[in-house]
Amino acid sequence: MSTVRAAVLTAFEQPLEIREYPEPAALAPGEALVRVEMAGICGTDVHLWLGQLPIPIPVIMGHETVGRIERVGDGLVKDWRGNPLKPGDRVTWASSIACGECFYCRTKNQPTRCLVRKAYGISYNSDEAPHLRGGYAEKILLRAGTAIFRIPDNLPTESVVGAGCALTTAIHGVERAPITWGDVVVVQGTGPVGLAALAVAIEAGAAKTVVIGGPPHRLELAREFGANTVIDVEAASDLLERRKLVLAATGPYGADVVIECVGHPDAVNEGIEFCRDGAKFLVLGQYANAGNISFNPHTVTRKQLQMIGSWGFEPRHVDRALALLERSKWKDHFAGEITHRFPLEKADDALTTTRGWRSGKTVIVP
Amino acid sequence: MSTVRAAVLTAFEQPLEIREYPEPAALAPGEALVRVEMAGICGTDVHLWLGQLPIPIPVIMGHETVGRIERVGDGLVKDWRGNPLKPGDRVTWASSIACGECFYCRTKNQPTRCLVRKAYGISYNSDEAPHLRGGYAEKILLRAGTAIFRIPDNLPTESVVGAGCALTTAIHGVERAPITWGDVVVVQGTGPVGLAALAVAIEAGAAKTVVIGGPPHRLELAREFGANTVIDVEAASDLLERRKLVLAATGPYGADVVIECVGHPDAVNEGIEFCRDGAKFLVLGQYANAGNISFNPHTVTRKQLQMIGSWGFEPRHVDRALALLERSKWKDHFAGEITHRFPLEKADDALTTTRGWRSGKTVIVP
Amino acid sequence: MSTVRAAVLTAFEQPLEIREYPEPAALAPGEALVRVEMAGICGTDVHLWLGQLPIPIPVIMGHETVGRIERVGDGLVKDWRGNPLKPGDRVTWASSIACGECFYCRTKNQPTRCLVRKAYGISYNSDEAPHLRGGYAEKILLRAGTAIFRIPDNLPTESVVGAGCALTTAIHGVERAPITWGDVVVVQGTGPVGLAALAVAIEAGAAKTVVIGGPPHRLELAREFGANTVIDVEAASDLLERRKLVLAATGPYGADVVIECVGHPDAVNEGIEFCRDGAKFLVLGQYANAGNISFNPHTVTRKQLQMIGSWGFEPRHVDRALALLERSKWKDHFAGEITHRFPLEKADDALTTTRGWRSGKTVIVP
Amino acid sequence: MSTVRAAVLTAFEQPLEIREYPEPAALAPGEALVRVEMAGICGTDVHLWLGQLPIPIPVIMGHETVGRIERVGDGLVKDWRGNPLKPGDRVTWASSIACGECFYCRTKNQPTRCLVRKAYGISYNSDEAPHLRGGYAEKILLRAGTAIFRIPDNLPTESVVGAGCALTTAIHGVERAPITWGDVVVVQGTGPVGLAALAVAIEAGAAKTVVIGGPPHRLELAREFGANTVIDVEAASDLLERRKLVLAATGPYGADVVIECVGHPDAVNEGIEFCRDGAKFLVLGQYANAGNISFNPHTVTRKQLQMIGSWGFEPRHVDRALALLERSKWKDHFAGEITHRFPLEKADDALTTTRGWRSGKTVIVP
Repeated sequence: MSTVRAAVLTAFEQPLEIREYPEPAALAPGEALVRVEMAGICGTDVHLWLGQLPIPIPVIMGHETVGRIERVGDGLVKDWRGNPLKPGDRVTWASSIACGECFYCRTKNQPTRCLVRKAYGISYNSDEAPHLRGGYAEKILLRAGTAIFRIPDNLPTESVVGAGCALTTAIHGVERAPITWGDVVVVQGTGPVGLAALAVAIEAGAAKTVVIGGPPHRLELAREFGANTVIDVEAASDLLERRKLVLAATGPYGADVVIECVGHPDAVNEGIEFCRDGAKFLVLGQYANAGNISFNPHTVTRKQLQMIGSWGFEPRHVDRALALLERSKWKDHFAGEITHRFPLEKADDALTTTRGWRSGKTVIVP
Repeated sequence: MSTVRAAVLTAFEQPLEIREYPEPAALAPGEALVRVEMAGICGTDVHLWLGQLPIPIPVIMGHETVGRIERVGDGLVKDWRGNPLKPGDRVTWASSIACGECFYCRTKNQPTRCLVRKAYGISYNSDEAPHLRGGYAEKILLRAGTAIFRIPDNLPTESVVGAGCALTTAIHGVERAPITWGDVVVVQGTGPVGLAALAVAIEAGAAKTVVIGGPPHRLELAREFGANTVIDVEAASDLLERRKLVLAATGPYGADVVIECVGHPDAVNEGIEFCRDGAKFLVLGQYANAGNISFNPHTVTRKQLQMIGSWGFEPRHVDRALALLERSKWKDHFAGEITHRFPLEKADDALTTTRGWRSGKTVIVP
Repeated sequence: MSTVRAAVLTAFEQPLEIREYPEPAALAPGEALVRVEMAGICGTDVHLWLGQLPIPIPVIMGHETVGRIERVGDGLVKDWRGNPLKPGDRVTWASSIACGECFYCRTKNQPTRCLVRKAYGISYNSDEAPHLRGGYAEKILLRAGTAIFRIPDNLPTESVVGAGCALTTAIHGVERAPITWGDVVVVQGTGPVGLAALAVAIEAGAAKTVVIGGPPHRLELAREFGANTVIDVEAASDLLERRKLVLAATGPYGADVVIECVGHPDAVNEGIEFCRDGAKFLVLGQYANAGNISFNPHTVTRKQLQMIGSWGFEPRHVDRALALLERSKWKDHFAGEITHRFPLEKADDALTTTRGWRSGKTVIVP
Repeated sequence: MSTVRAAVLTAFEQPLEIREYPEPAALAPGEALVRVEMAGICGTDVHLWLGQLPIPIPVIMGHETVGRIERVGDGLVKDWRGNPLKPGDRVTWASSIACGECFYCRTKNQPTRCLVRKAYGISYNSDEAPHLRGGYAEKILLRAGTAIFRIPDNLPTESVVGAGCALTTAIHGVERAPITWGDVVVVQGTGPVGLAALAVAIEAGAAKTVVIGGPPHRLELAREFGANTVIDVEAASDLLERRKLVLAATGPYGADVVIECVGHPDAVNEGIEFCRDGAKFLVLGQYANAGNISFNPHTVTRKQLQMIGSWGFEPRHVDRALALLERSKWKDHFAGEITHRFPLEKADDALTTTRGWRSGKTVIVP
């Protein structure tokens, strides 16, 4: 019986272990076995590795993946868009499956908060068959019902993994906190989510985009993406000074839309200061529970803010992300985020590199 | 020269002084001199009295007022709705005037955040002529451009003052955080704003309304207004216990809309717990800066909340409030809030009564 | 082998035929066999009978049905809401099943326009096994994936069938053309859809509802439902006269929302005249292609109207309809619409009665 | 006394007359006397000239004008944006003034349908003092309350007049029928409104824009503006053929948003065919009453369309238009629309040129 190698998180903050799992024999209807071509390291993976989110271990991480279909189960003949699907096709997929039956899926039409949602690379214990539910592996077995997307030939794997779940997350976020064309938009953070939010803001017709983040190599990416103003958090480490710089760019009353993509909870208080009265403040970066802040709710009332949260995304947003990536300049910009590549055996180094903010985007090429 | 008596706030937390001001001689175009029939004590007045908001003193407080027109300046022949207006008419008016020219009034179409807005009973130093800019007085002089509303004969003064600025505030709030018919709505607080929010929620078709507040005489009002479930904050003083009671009424996932009308900043953290994922959370009660709370922004992201602030109201909302008051049962319910009446000389007692939560609604009858 | 009797449309505008079909033997997973208690005659059924919509024949009509579960296939243990489901339960169901996979279901999140949607009582040729796909029969076989709703014990069958698909249609329509509380709403038509739209308008907080329709027994129903003004199309047969009556009720500029529930295409031109500038005009009654009108598109631009169409409904709207029916007065009002009952053998008489506008609501009790 | 020359419409479809009017002596407070630099010929002017809209005559037409301030009345010291304003400044202005007091201005917050709105170049009888209320003249006298905008130095007069009221009209239209980024948008018509709608669609992030119009020199402009697909109405004169071409570009189900900017009423029926089910159809071109069409309202219901009208614009939209014109490429594109210039004496030729569709944009340079 042939086996499949995977890098497995077996203990928090410890080196990943390379383990071998049996390759699935016959596939059940609707399943797909995919050979991984490239797996992105998401910032969330670092949080998982550090034990900051409630997950089962051992787990094969990796929820931003591109691969080629090796085998399909009965009935799997079309991708999510209705395109024909067959072995050999290069694909990506939505990282989680909503049940379609719970209170949130049905009554509230809000599948991102599905009560029993499971995500590849996060929610599956790899001790349990069929084991192969994450991207840090030679192969992954996709469940029936996974939203699979065939990648157009003209769209490089690097673009898709470079955009990763950051782009779909940003697209969903902006759906919840819509940007009107002509808006002034501030993006806090220049990690993958910040850059993706910047791309979406530009696509949505922001008249002016102001990005505040770092380190310098990521600010350079923000400039290449098209930010009108780029501010280095380090160069202006004082909060008041930073606020002055941002307001100089937005106009004295602040921005119409502020998108927090930082993750540090303090960024929320800072972002509120960038909001004009009545602004939308999209809190997009607080995926991990990184603790409390001292917060004045009077500000929400007085400035009549809209503080809007957004969690994950639906397959519709993968569809839109791929369409965006095919357009114009974005294909290159997102591919250009990838600066570090590691083989499966060096998955640890990939995590460490991501954790240290040294990379644009880090990927595993098994 | 005849004079006009007023109760004047001359020092914070000190007894109001009765002062006499000269009655205006000739009126300028568009002005109106109104004999006050009844002036409501708003919770904000207590905050003003305690010096918790930045205002000039001395000031004649009173921004919820009904009176009869005595004299009008040239050109003032119609009320805001276009009805003919003349001396003898019973009227109320929007408490503030937006400039119509600033960034918020013009570019952002958001006059509630007018940069130079002034409010009767709050923003005018009564040392400065023409002095009479608040409702705690025998007469008030309305500026040209004030949105004056003639009160229909069938609508008692008690209903209008009983509703006060709480109703217009709630109407504006729900405009910003719309209730969809069939929604489950939780209202935190049973002060005037809470009861008004309850009324608006019922009018907007809430399928179920859950009110949490106190003391008992105000819970009784909430029941009379039509709340489906009424919970006493005292009877269930433990946070987890309270949450359990609220969720038992809303359904296990929480409410579609939660309206905070408490004012204590802690109510914000409690209210978030009553929200289903994806809910709207209208932060309506944090008018005064009552300090910071320890707050976890991860919740906003994870529950994908919409936390929405709302400040003040526009004349349009007074128009809607009066229309609501004319309808059905509301006329009686809001008039029934008034439990305590004081003459001008006892304005202090009125403030003290309001501060002590002993009344439904307290008014001054000069 | 036992058989099931059904009233079958075998030729347009001809008497229905009573035919017998084999009762299904073993049920496939997820299927349900339901004994029909009551089947409503929808106005659409008359259109189908007259051959005005493209359907296969022979067909067992009937898409507004309540029955009791006799048998269930494997895996069908919960209703759409997650309540346990078992033989003996009284149920109703969404009349159509969206595929969940097509362009409209997926990309546009708009399952009412599913490209391959099939509806019970409309889209199934009864010559083809398993035959039993309509409500005019002793039993109906529900496909796996049907959105089945267990009816609460306190909700009479008459209320559910009396509301029929009219209520779910109105709920979906008002979701697309939202009523804001305080709106003035005109409903054109007092058939089941008109009355249902009236109920939804009242629930959504319409400040004033004006209904124009007939004949007198249906106007009486509109009054009972709570319409503020009821106008008889016959008493005011002249268009200008009618418009004058309607505007006298709405106010001189017209209504904020007008809901067309008539079906005659001319009603569209009349309804536009009831709209204030900027109004929403929900075109809800034009389900059948009843031909063209002479129409001036300049009116749409000049009055800056929103003319909004709405087709069918989703299971979510059945959920909301049942919740509405459980509330307050609606249970009785909708049950009260039912004026005529016929056995299966007299299904023709049921159709003729409905066609002749002689009934409130006509039903078949097999 | 000095005089001002103007080209006056004195009889429909007759040559304009050059008349002389007295130059205003002292200006009233808030007024401005502006020397006209350039006046655009709007398609509406042709309709006015042909007597197709109800206007007073004689009238000085011209509602798309740029000029330099010669004198200002007391108190006019700032433009609409709050910038200082003084003689010598180059300005443009909103063509109409809403009253701020009527039902639509106040209660419905919809000033574009102000009940007493008057527009420069359209609504003022030039026999009545002060005569100078249109742009086809050496000077124009602006009323107090006019929304005047100082034009930034880097923005050429040609860009502003080239964009004309078409751009503000399109901006308001798209505010009423919002484009979501990623939408597929069809624009019907390549006149000034069509090109402006195309620009707004691109700014708003349309993923694909399809323009159908003519003649060839205007299609070339559409290409330069950035349309992804340009279809010649003449080359594909058959309706079915045209539809096939459009759907080949949009995808088989049609566009998410269709913007009608043609003016011929038949374009409405054609545009509906370009709509996917559930699409927004912005009826923007039907400013003149050009008669009725044979129209099937069943389509609105079945395709669940949103047919949205839009009339005129507010000063806010002039603000946004100027901001757009300052951005990127638009400055040049709109300036490039101007192909024909005429002196005041040849205003007739300007009208005839515009009527004959021979020009891009025609202007008068007095």
